[in-house]
Amino acid sequence: MVVVMQERATEAQVEAVVAQLLEMGYAIHRSSGANRVVIGAVGGGHGDPALIGVREGVHEVLRISVPYKLASRTFKPENTVITIGDVRIGGDEVVVMAGPCSAENEAQVEASAIAVKRAGAKIFRGGAFKPRSSPYSFQGLGEDGLKMLRASADRHDLKLITEVMEIAQIEIVQQYADILQVGARNMQNYSLLRELGKVRKPVLLKRGLSATIEEWLMSAEYILAGGNREVMLCERGIRTFESYTRNTFDVSAIPVVQQLSHLPVIADPSHGTGRRDKVAAMARAAVAAGCDGLLIEVHCDPDHAQSDGAQSLFPNQFDQLMAELRIIAPAIGRSICVASVARRGWGR
Amino acid sequence: MVVVMQERATEAQVEAVVAQLLEMGYAIHRSSGANRVVIGAVGGGHGDPALIGVREGVHEVLRISVPYKLASRTFKPENTVITIGDVRIGGDEVVVMAGPCSAENEAQVEASAIAVKRAGAKIFRGGAFKPRSSPYSFQGLGEDGLKMLRASADRHDLKLITEVMEIAQIEIVQQYADILQVGARNMQNYSLLRELGKVRKPVLLKRGLSATIEEWLMSAEYILAGGNREVMLCERGIRTFESYTRNTFDVSAIPVVQQLSHLPVIADPSHGTGRRDKVAAMARAAVAAGCDGLLIEVHCDPDHAQSDGAQSLFPNQFDQLMAELRIIAPAIGRSICVASVARRGWGR
Amino acid sequence: MVVVMQERATEAQVEAVVAQLLEMGYAIHRSSGANRVVIGAVGGGHGDPALIGVREGVHEVLRISVPYKLASRTFKPENTVITIGDVRIGGDEVVVMAGPCSAENEAQVEASAIAVKRAGAKIFRGGAFKPRSSPYSFQGLGEDGLKMLRASADRHDLKLITEVMEIAQIEIVQQYADILQVGARNMQNYSLLRELGKVRKPVLLKRGLSATIEEWLMSAEYILAGGNREVMLCERGIRTFESYTRNTFDVSAIPVVQQLSHLPVIADPSHGTGRRDKVAAMARAAVAAGCDGLLIEVHCDPDHAQSDGAQSLFPNQFDQLMAELRIIAPAIGRSICVASVARRGWGR
Amino acid sequence: MVVVMQERATEAQVEAVVAQLLEMGYAIHRSSGANRVVIGAVGGGHGDPALIGVREGVHEVLRISVPYKLASRTFKPENTVITIGDVRIGGDEVVVMAGPCSAENEAQVEASAIAVKRAGAKIFRGGAFKPRSSPYSFQGLGEDGLKMLRASADRHDLKLITEVMEIAQIEIVQQYADILQVGARNMQNYSLLRELGKVRKPVLLKRGLSATIEEWLMSAEYILAGGNREVMLCERGIRTFESYTRNTFDVSAIPVVQQLSHLPVIADPSHGTGRRDKVAAMARAAVAAGCDGLLIEVHCDPDHAQSDGAQSLFPNQFDQLMAELRIIAPAIGRSICVASVARRGWGR
Repeated sequence: MVVVMQERATEAQVEAVVAQLLEMGYAIHRSSGANRVVIGAVGGGHGDPALIGVREGVHEVLRISVPYKLASRTFKPENTVITIGDVRIGGDEVVVMAGPCSAENEAQVEASAIAVKRAGAKIFRGGAFKPRSSPYSFQGLGEDGLKMLRASADRHDLKLITEVMEIAQIEIVQQYADILQVGARNMQNYSLLRELGKVRKPVLLKRGLSATIEEWLMSAEYILAGGNREVMLCERGIRTFESYTRNTFDVSAIPVVQQLSHLPVIADPSHGTGRRDKVAAMARAAVAAGCDGLLIEVHCDPDHAQSDGAQSLFPNQFDQLMAELRIIAPAIGRSICVASVARRGWGR
Repeated sequence: MVVVMQERATEAQVEAVVAQLLEMGYAIHRSSGANRVVIGAVGGGHGDPALIGVREGVHEVLRISVPYKLASRTFKPENTVITIGDVRIGGDEVVVMAGPCSAENEAQVEASAIAVKRAGAKIFRGGAFKPRSSPYSFQGLGEDGLKMLRASADRHDLKLITEVMEIAQIEIVQQYADILQVGARNMQNYSLLRELGKVRKPVLLKRGLSATIEEWLMSAEYILAGGNREVMLCERGIRTFESYTRNTFDVSAIPVVQQLSHLPVIADPSHGTGRRDKVAAMARAAVAAGCDGLLIEVHCDPDHAQSDGAQSLFPNQFDQLMAELRIIAPAIGRSICVASVARRGWGR
Repeated sequence: MVVVMQERATEAQVEAVVAQLLEMGYAIHRSSGANRVVIGAVGGGHGDPALIGVREGVHEVLRISVPYKLASRTFKPENTVITIGDVRIGGDEVVVMAGPCSAENEAQVEASAIAVKRAGAKIFRGGAFKPRSSPYSFQGLGEDGLKMLRASADRHDLKLITEVMEIAQIEIVQQYADILQVGARNMQNYSLLRELGKVRKPVLLKRGLSATIEEWLMSAEYILAGGNREVMLCERGIRTFESYTRNTFDVSAIPVVQQLSHLPVIADPSHGTGRRDKVAAMARAAVAAGCDGLLIEVHCDPDHAQSDGAQSLFPNQFDQLMAELRIIAPAIGRSICVASVARRGWGR
Repeated sequence: MVVVMQERATEAQVEAVVAQLLEMGYAIHRSSGANRVVIGAVGGGHGDPALIGVREGVHEVLRISVPYKLASRTFKPENTVITIGDVRIGGDEVVVMAGPCSAENEAQVEASAIAVKRAGAKIFRGGAFKPRSSPYSFQGLGEDGLKMLRASADRHDLKLITEVMEIAQIEIVQQYADILQVGARNMQNYSLLRELGKVRKPVLLKRGLSATIEEWLMSAEYILAGGNREVMLCERGIRTFESYTRNTFDVSAIPVVQQLSHLPVIADPSHGTGRRDKVAAMARAAVAAGCDGLLIEVHCDPDHAQSDGAQSLFPNQFDQLMAELRIIAPAIGRSICVASVARRGWGR
């Protein structure tokens, strides 16, 4: 760390800071300028920089290292590519994950799976355990929901991503899912993250509503440090003063995280906007900004969805969006999976 | 809900909205003004207002009921007073909870307990399970820490509050603690909240960094709906653009919550500011604004604390603060416990 | 407005609200549900809804009309297209405005103009009066700068946009510029806006750092109400808790404003990110999201720019970006001007 | 500044940074640790640190000096006390400024002046030029309003503070007012600030809705650098995600600014909350936190005010508040002016 003393700091104050840094185990380099003293603390010390920051005579303490290691490009310069069967996340293709917010019943799950497969999605999304802000809202079908989701995914050759909300659910969720999702509200549920570090399936970690990019990478670090190196990060909107959209979808986080970290970055424009009529524009923006994948809510009948209907696309809207994305992706040297109908030669 | 149509909405759009509201089970009242149609939907309907909000021709949907019930003053107009032995939270006295961030060892716990008791605190705080943003930081002593905290609390006739981070810890924490604390990062860990609804000890629920007041009350609702009616709310700072203080301590949330809810409101100026030199000013402000209690970090030796040292008060600073608070509290018809030394006639 | 009474509101409280609404000139419709009274106030009344909101017994006051009129799609459903010579802003083409932050000297202005023209920009940007957060920073060349900018624009058949900071500058700036720009910090400088309403040149109004979309449209309303109907809106990033980028570029504001208003929406990814290495990704995102134009800082030698060098593109980066944008625009049925070199058949 | 290189930065990248720093005129100190190179740049250089920040191989640039000088405690360690006749702002007494939002007519101005004088205010507030977010709202009485305000202030031995919105108003406003107020929306209207630097009357500078404390002090620097050393700062709430209150009143800014600057800090709980029923709690909190003065809206008949009625106190509420503040102020060694009735021996 670098400790910047106040311009009027006394020699005694400087010496007290130096003494504490030495006690913390740092090597010290003191630089006295015309106006102020600056103290560099390097080496194997450990201690809370904030403790120095509140000492008398200290103007500011500047940290010079990032607190995450395994998640950083310094640790691993090349992109992490997560492979699930024939799907590669973090490679040249922008991978699309789509499906309903919740599994509601077999017919709804199946109809939604058919729709997203047809349009070119490779991964099926759907929730069985739902975190709801009201205790009186629909909380998901639990294991029954997982079974429906898996069955439809298998039937249409899709991989499956679904959310895990608590430690006790990990065991069962990983029996059904290919990717375990951690929701925004659990981004700093450290107990859950630590357990997910022991799992041997990829984890998609959503950014918390008020999480800085650094905090988000620190949460990824929990999972990585536990031994699970297959983590992908998902931007889904942050909380700001603007209330027209449910959240403010931070598109710039995509290139920022890609610079700082080797982990794949997924964008969720459905939660990022909260409004169906803004999802397509933000999905296009995310691909143009360089995301490695999209997570989009698509429902066979959004008007009767039990959750998130207002932000779920109709199947034909999703078809249209995929067509637009296929034009955009080449602008940055990437591709989007073609629609099944085109690829396989049979139609709806 | 009230559905405001766009000024140029067509009759067909209006009728489609009406049809959907009827299908949701609402009774409808349609009002056609000079410029636009407004549709009131009342009665026992259920359905997501956002679904109406994204329909064509709809300008805006306005909700007219609050989503929490048990936490509201409508449900219970009189203040909830939580009684733990001879301590009453939510009554005339402003109850002070103080102690170190973490239990580190017996000597530190005991010295801190002595200090806070002497100054007039009634409840001892300290953590044994610590949520840390880095997986490489000190994570707490676990049950050993709980034992130390309980022993010192008992020795000095203090009640004990400590944090519970996950469902599996509830059983053991409630054996030692008088109040279970839910941290800001777990405010929307619904699985944890649901389990705490079954506990028969008071719960202190911290506000999440980006939680609106309504979301905070919804999280309280989870605990109340589970059957535990002894919930207190704790303001501890929200995340804003201003970075000089670690968070922005939202003092105005105190009177706002007291108007909306019957639950006691506690203020935590230590986390609210993150800087020792700002804690006293914010503690005074919180009492002046009418809070029912304070949660303050006090450490016998903050410079060597294993966590949160920079925001922990020295014992003599805490003494001084308590003296100031005793002047302020009567301005709003309340009191603060006198210091032990004054009350009992012997000092240290 | 709709006044929602508290569930326990007394009849006297309801009657007092009704009396005040009648005094304000509203027609009243009272609806008594099982739980609460809701009062609709319609017609030609005028008065501050907040006054009703603080009355005893009132739960909430919901406004049902937007406070801007001329800026809304209701007033003018079709897009406003602003025509300056052969340039049409708001039509099928995405118009690119580019150039240096400040005019520094003739050589720099000319070299920058050549670069942006070559790449396909239609409008030249550059500042002569600079709003700087420090009184000790470079404040611009004033009229000398305007002359340089105009001369280079004319030489290369470019239109010119430049900023006006105060009323006294309007006269001179409109002698040189084709479009007058209002900076983010002046978005609510109502005196300035009112004067710009009298000008007969187009105005580009930047969104304030903490302005809601509604406030932004209200500021546009000031100019429109003064008689100047040629206003374009420019998103340039909002202030949030995230500090990695200088601002958070709110890409979703583009489709939101296009839905609410008929005015063209321009995106400024240079100020939106504050970092050169993120400008291209955000420019692509803005076009993919549907913006009507881009405002981009390009400097012939960014490392020696007197202002905003860190967010200014090098000419070759701008060339590359324009090529990418030409791939993306067709995805939403739009085009970008081809580069001069391609169009005219001669290079540099 | 301190330049922290990336861990994998090449020697060529380090040398390029050093070369640019030298070109900017800095003296360089290079420190090579186990993991990374850190470059200290000191001395009389000048250049934009952001330019270094976007260079290849650079991890982060840390600024080690504050950009404001005259406003800082380093420049002037002792508190600035602004004296206007027998009123001293920044001394032991907490000075209360109160009155209506706008001057509406003589009777309203006079009745409001009587009320605030009686309760113990020393300075009368009221607006004649009003910045309104809607062009269709009441814009103030102009010079007629100034005359009314001055007459009532003189009649009751009160000083007068009123807002100036544009350069052209400075001349006339300073003929009537003792303190010129700059509104939050004009905090970064640098043209206006520069002109106010030439005025020889005190200026109260409100914090912008999204202004960091540093930006606020930079705006004060504009006025100070112009030669006007009598500047006071006014906290009036910042914009956050919480929408229950109109703004979030940042009470912690009071002690923070007092630490960084010698200028007096005034608190405006009326705009800080936007709701009459929360003003008293926040006024008490601000005094408890140590503010040097209060700016409060009091109207003789708030329900019929032409602006800000919902946040204006009734005279009897203001009396009650002043009595509470007189209890609180001594807790921090300060006083509040006694009510006229007590001091002068004649009552209502």
